Amino acid sequence: MTGTAASQADIAADRLPGGAPAPDVALAARLFDELRLRTGGGRPERGITRTSYGLGEQIAHEIVQREARRMGMRCEIDAACNLFMTMKGREPGPAVMIGSHLDSVPAGGNFDGAAGVLAGIAVASGFHRAGLRPARDLTVAAIRAEESTWFGASYIGSRAAFGQLAGRELDTVLRSGDRIPLGAAIASAGGDTARIRDGVPQLDPAAIAAFIEPHIEQGPVLAGAGRAIGLVTGIRGSFRHREARCEGAYAHSGATPRDHRQDAALAVARLIVAMDEAWQKLAGEGHDMAVTFGQVTTDRDHAAFSKVAGRVDFSLDVRSEDTATLDVARAELAAAVARIEAACNVRFRLGPETGSRPARMDPALLDQLARIAADAGGDARPMPCGAGHDAAVFAQNGIPTAMIFIRNENGSHNPFEAMEMEDFAEAAKLLSAFCDEGPGATGPA
Amino acid sequence: MTGTAASQADIAADRLPGGAPAPDVALAARLFDELRLRTGGGRPERGITRTSYGLGEQIAHEIVQREARRMGMRCEIDAACNLFMTMKGREPGPAVMIGSHLDSVPAGGNFDGAAGVLAGIAVASGFHRAGLRPARDLTVAAIRAEESTWFGASYIGSRAAFGQLAGRELDTVLRSGDRIPLGAAIASAGGDTARIRDGVPQLDPAAIAAFIEPHIEQGPVLAGAGRAIGLVTGIRGSFRHREARCEGAYAHSGATPRDHRQDAALAVARLIVAMDEAWQKLAGEGHDMAVTFGQVTTDRDHAAFSKVAGRVDFSLDVRSEDTATLDVARAELAAAVARIEAACNVRFRLGPETGSRPARMDPALLDQLARIAADAGGDARPMPCGAGHDAAVFAQNGIPTAMIFIRNENGSHNPFEAMEMEDFAEAAKLLSAFCDEGPGATGPA
Repeated sequence: MTGTAASQADIAADRLPGGAPAPDVALAARLFDELRLRTGGGRPERGITRTSYGLGEQIAHEIVQREARRMGMRCEIDAACNLFMTMKGREPGPAVMIGSHLDSVPAGGNFDGAAGVLAGIAVASGFHRAGLRPARDLTVAAIRAEESTWFGASYIGSRAAFGQLAGRELDTVLRSGDRIPLGAAIASAGGDTARIRDGVPQLDPAAIAAFIEPHIEQGPVLAGAGRAIGLVTGIRGSFRHREARCEGAYAHSGATPRDHRQDAALAVARLIVAMDEAWQKLAGEGHDMAVTFGQVTTDRDHAAFSKVAGRVDFSLDVRSEDTATLDVARAELAAAVARIEAACNVRFRLGPETGSRPARMDPALLDQLARIAADAGGDARPMPCGAGHDAAVFAQNGIPTAMIFIRNENGSHNPFEAMEMEDFAEAAKLLSAFCDEGPGATGPA
Repeated sequence: MTGTAASQADIAADRLPGGAPAPDVALAARLFDELRLRTGGGRPERGITRTSYGLGEQIAHEIVQREARRMGMRCEIDAACNLFMTMKGREPGPAVMIGSHLDSVPAGGNFDGAAGVLAGIAVASGFHRAGLRPARDLTVAAIRAEESTWFGASYIGSRAAFGQLAGRELDTVLRSGDRIPLGAAIASAGGDTARIRDGVPQLDPAAIAAFIEPHIEQGPVLAGAGRAIGLVTGIRGSFRHREARCEGAYAHSGATPRDHRQDAALAVARLIVAMDEAWQKLAGEGHDMAVTFGQVTTDRDHAAFSKVAGRVDFSLDVRSEDTATLDVARAELAAAVARIEAACNVRFRLGPETGSRPARMDPALLDQLARIAADAGGDARPMPCGAGHDAAVFAQNGIPTAMIFIRNENGSHNPFEAMEMEDFAEAAKLLSAFCDEGPGATGPA
């Protein structure tokens, strides 16, 4: 009868071809909508803002914790306010962890970070509504403070989870905008800075069989290739100068002869052009690299259209998969700075250098994920990752780590991120199948 | 006797060698101090701020009007709040006008503008305390709103004084920062915008025999040459784009391949470097020119160190003594913009072009001033003027016009302007002698 067939189809739709429960993509879609509504400030053109240890991030953590409790998951919040939500597995042994971060850049998009956490929630909800359990304990991780725009430091939440956040960072690292110290921000979110200072880890690498971070692709590669998802082979490292400046001398724009000028705007322009030329040259020699001056600003109070600029503040971000290339770029920067200081009679103050090391993903874990994707008739493209992610910290702690990239139009870190739920579903299905067979399995029994 | 000799010396000190009364430099010094105190905001490192039609300018006008009334000068305030203070002369005929402006750039210096008005006050006070009268009526002019940083329009006060301010400017021109329309700002200062709209002039060119604007030099030429004062031969014209921008696309700094970027920061940097190269080339060919990008700013809300810049706002100021050179520079700009738009996949929006025509000073008036300076054993160096001044408007209205530059260290439009009162006194003595012999005189009788 029609009714019975429909019921059977409904039941079948709750299982993936290999028998794993279908992920609860509809729940994820509702949660994306709730996140957009509650962290968007009512101005769609401004995107969403989920400040690290600020209101938007706090709201996002409350939303996912509510859903995890609804499914009966065990919720643990560590000293840095990272949230770990665990569903009991069928077998003992190290857990599978799926997760990402819930903060965003200012005026960012709804998917960067959140997609990884909600993919874990969708997988867990799939098991929950099917009345099934994953092979191993499944922990969905919501990591704090991944977007280094806010505190000018990388991987705050994940480093703290491994007891690796330096105590001095709590005091010296300030949030952009409100200049609140990191420690004070963590305390205001309910964290325990004394435990962080003591270096007490929340996570034991030996207890985690695999960490998988699903994330929207932040570049145009998958969209250009017509692929829904990709498997990341490695994560770029970086060096950054977030608070660099060039000091010249303010002077009248019409009355200061060319050879008397100390023009900070011209000097910084020359530096930007020089570093772009260095990038072009090194890329031509086969180096992986990216150079970005994302912020360039004359002084709001002192600069005027009729004055030579006496000061320009700027940021510089250099990334590469290869530590040696970062060293070459650092040398190019030093040479350009010295050359331009002499030519323009200015001083550069690059300020502290921050950054992160490149990280390799786990080949065996990638092979397993690629095999599952192929078995399901899908296709997960291997690709490098240009941006830093918490997955790098898990990999550097010796945990077999992978990232699944999800196709996304318009890049990330802007209001126009455009992930399709169909592509998100591809990643969630892959994860559900992986959780069902368990880490290290070599294929269907 | 000693007492008598001292008294005679005092009396002699009140006269210049040619018999003109010594200017009251001590009064000017007290007024500079009062201006610094009352328009400095209590923060010396921020210099002074006398906003056009704002509080600081209003205070300055009150101070000089108070002094003029004390001397019994006739005070007239026109529809644009320009202040004309007149001391009766010995002879009939067109007046001598000495003056400048009393506004400043934001966080500017105490002398730019004010030195010209206080030189006139010092000369008038010299005549007043000596019980003498100048040859012709002496009008000290305090012009409004000369610093185009505020309203993005040149010579607002002096154009209004000649009935040449366009009515639409009252509505469309907004003050930087508070975005108050020019007309509203004039009205709040007590002006009569209806009269300005009707184009009613306050000044009759036929009634002004000479306009002389004393002003600190805004460049380093006199200081470098060891001269106290200079005589300006001509005033540079300009073209400006005060609200230009470059539009690219925000994108993740690590995940966006080089050939997908639309980097507005790189594009503007290339434009700055290209226009500097054009300046270098044209200067080498003998062109008089100055190119300044005084403001260059990524978006406060959208830019981040980890994002390719999607937008950069900037200002451009190009100046020359020669209209033809401005045309060449304009063509260089257009070519660079087109080239960089294609190379960087961005769009430049240069916005409206404003500017001013070059203006020649009056040769006969300059000759008279040079002869008086030489007769007094001094030396007034002839020199061009790189900046725009109200004197250009007086010259363009057919009034014999001159500018006296006063040596000044550290440039202008910054808190570190450093005019010495000894140099100011040289300019004031020259003016007193000129006022005593009257315009067009060929030498001592």
